[in-house]
Amino acid sequence: MTSDNNNNNKKECLGWAATDPSGLLSPYHFSRRAVGSEDVSIRITHCGVCYADVVWTRNRLGDSKYPLVPGHEIVGIVKAVGLGVHGFKVGDRVGVGTYVNSCRHCEYCADGLDNYCENGLVFTFNHVDFDGSVTKGGYSSSIVVHHRYCFRIPDSYPLASAAPLLCAGITVYSPMMRHKMNQPGKSLGVIGLGGLGHMAIKFGKAFGLNVTVFSTSISKKEEALTLLGADKFVISSDEEQMKALAKSYDFIVDTASGDHPFDPYMALLKTAGVLVLVGFPSEIKLHPANLVLGMRTISGSTVGGTKETQEMLEFCAARGIYPNIEVVPIQYANEALERLIRRDVKYRFVIDIENSLK
Amino acid sequence: MTSDNNNNNKKECLGWAATDPSGLLSPYHFSRRAVGSEDVSIRITHCGVCYADVVWTRNRLGDSKYPLVPGHEIVGIVKAVGLGVHGFKVGDRVGVGTYVNSCRHCEYCADGLDNYCENGLVFTFNHVDFDGSVTKGGYSSSIVVHHRYCFRIPDSYPLASAAPLLCAGITVYSPMMRHKMNQPGKSLGVIGLGGLGHMAIKFGKAFGLNVTVFSTSISKKEEALTLLGADKFVISSDEEQMKALAKSYDFIVDTASGDHPFDPYMALLKTAGVLVLVGFPSEIKLHPANLVLGMRTISGSTVGGTKETQEMLEFCAARGIYPNIEVVPIQYANEALERLIRRDVKYRFVIDIENSLK
Repeated sequence: MTSDNNNNNKKECLGWAATDPSGLLSPYHFSRRAVGSEDVSIRITHCGVCYADVVWTRNRLGDSKYPLVPGHEIVGIVKAVGLGVHGFKVGDRVGVGTYVNSCRHCEYCADGLDNYCENGLVFTFNHVDFDGSVTKGGYSSSIVVHHRYCFRIPDSYPLASAAPLLCAGITVYSPMMRHKMNQPGKSLGVIGLGGLGHMAIKFGKAFGLNVTVFSTSISKKEEALTLLGADKFVISSDEEQMKALAKSYDFIVDTASGDHPFDPYMALLKTAGVLVLVGFPSEIKLHPANLVLGMRTISGSTVGGTKETQEMLEFCAARGIYPNIEVVPIQYANEALERLIRRDVKYRFVIDIENSLK
Repeated sequence: MTSDNNNNNKKECLGWAATDPSGLLSPYHFSRRAVGSEDVSIRITHCGVCYADVVWTRNRLGDSKYPLVPGHEIVGIVKAVGLGVHGFKVGDRVGVGTYVNSCRHCEYCADGLDNYCENGLVFTFNHVDFDGSVTKGGYSSSIVVHHRYCFRIPDSYPLASAAPLLCAGITVYSPMMRHKMNQPGKSLGVIGLGGLGHMAIKFGKAFGLNVTVFSTSISKKEEALTLLGADKFVISSDEEQMKALAKSYDFIVDTASGDHPFDPYMALLKTAGVLVLVGFPSEIKLHPANLVLGMRTISGSTVGGTKETQEMLEFCAARGIYPNIEVVPIQYANEALERLIRRDVKYRFVIDIENSLK
């Protein structure tokens, strides 16, 4: 019922789609499903630009389904709700993150950890939904989702700023909370200074942590310390400085997706310290002694559950935590993706859908 | 005061020592330090044979200090105590494990986690103690240790059986307790079936877990299931069976010290599952997706603290958990080490010091 072919007469949704592995985006008309009784229909105002948009528009994992509408940091205004929806009403400010469906009854869903749904999470774009349709993301004028995957954006919080919280923000917030890094005085290392890394600094400072940024590029030092508020900046190739910091961190969040060695960072962890990987290098390789002798841990994490996502949005509003964003029109989307590939972004592009997608 | 040179006149201790990297053990007279006010002096009755004895007698890590008396699974009878010792008296049945000193004031020592002492743990043999002397292990007639590193062996528990608990036992017990694997109904995987692996099965069954042994050799199947009580035995090279078990384990304890792939085992873990490495392969290599997509963890662990070691001894006595041992005379020690290298042991050699070292 929701496939394009069955809705030829009402392709009400305008998006920008990639049509082949070049990844080049261009306007594309398609339809969203009819609003079901549990659904919320949203007029999209903004969509953040995530590295996932690069990965799938360019078919880097070989599973891209074209035409492909990327975007999973979506915010907007409710324009309709199903009869069974009580938590949202027309006019509400809402967001949608990286997933739009899950089984809603397994033990993880029951705990609000839908992101680890045992029966198959459905991603916001390029994923086959339970009804067989291929999901399409937020580089588009509207979206229809089950209300469970819809979040309230606090009144005072700018919609454009909320967008990056829905992937970059929750991806670092979730493991920090899980590993009790909201306790003042603890020490946090942040590897990589992009969309995720800069949010890790902000959460770290809000939690009262001592935050060190590890980067390969000295060019990021000034901003990391002054603009973002990190306490320390270390060039990871500086062996002497790295050695001096041995065994001094409670927690490291590794946001780097490029390949990099792990042993130098594991050695920075205190006894029982934890490194959480949220990026996607091609391989993890480390010496067992760096785990065994210090009871250290390397763990993975991906986005966050529905419950903690809502909690994070409220925390950001209450504490005045805002991503650093560059708002661009949809016509700049191709250039934005190219710049993201070159890591030329401070620190997240947000597409102004509302004012440019026409 | 405690070096051999200063005690030429009273080399009261007889041990078996390796004198070069051949690792060949032969009788060796030396002295133990005088009993200090906080010390316990022990007449050794038994000593377990651990793979560490192979590693250091043969200088595999390049740091062996000859003559080297191995052995860190020590049990015996108290023969003297210092004036400041209240917890032990002459005639008590006691044990000494893998370490004999720590700072006793850092946060880890304060928590009874001396094994992660921040200021330097002193191992039971081949380690420079705080007084500059090189420690000598339990292939010997007696030992003198600070009472903190001395454990009570419960009355009913055979001394010979207690020996392997002090390294093999605590090394698997500690991470199982830390990761809450004492909750009935959980699923445990055990990689490797030697001294550590067979104890992991026994603890697992005592905790009410479903226990699967992963091995490279079908020859171990029968004993794993019948003698040791495992619920399932899987040949790790059987891809079909491994695939059928995907996402079904809460916890895996990896006791294999030979090199092996990690991805096939990580894939067996449930969401948020944990693999704890207690062996010493030369490298850990795995695909990030196996951590990130399932919020999975790989962690390290080494022996256990003083508090949990005593707790484990009492648990084994209360629940009738006994290592499977082969008791041998000290004259068999060289052959025992050779058989250990060939993995020809079921499942721990224990040297009968009391009746053979003369």
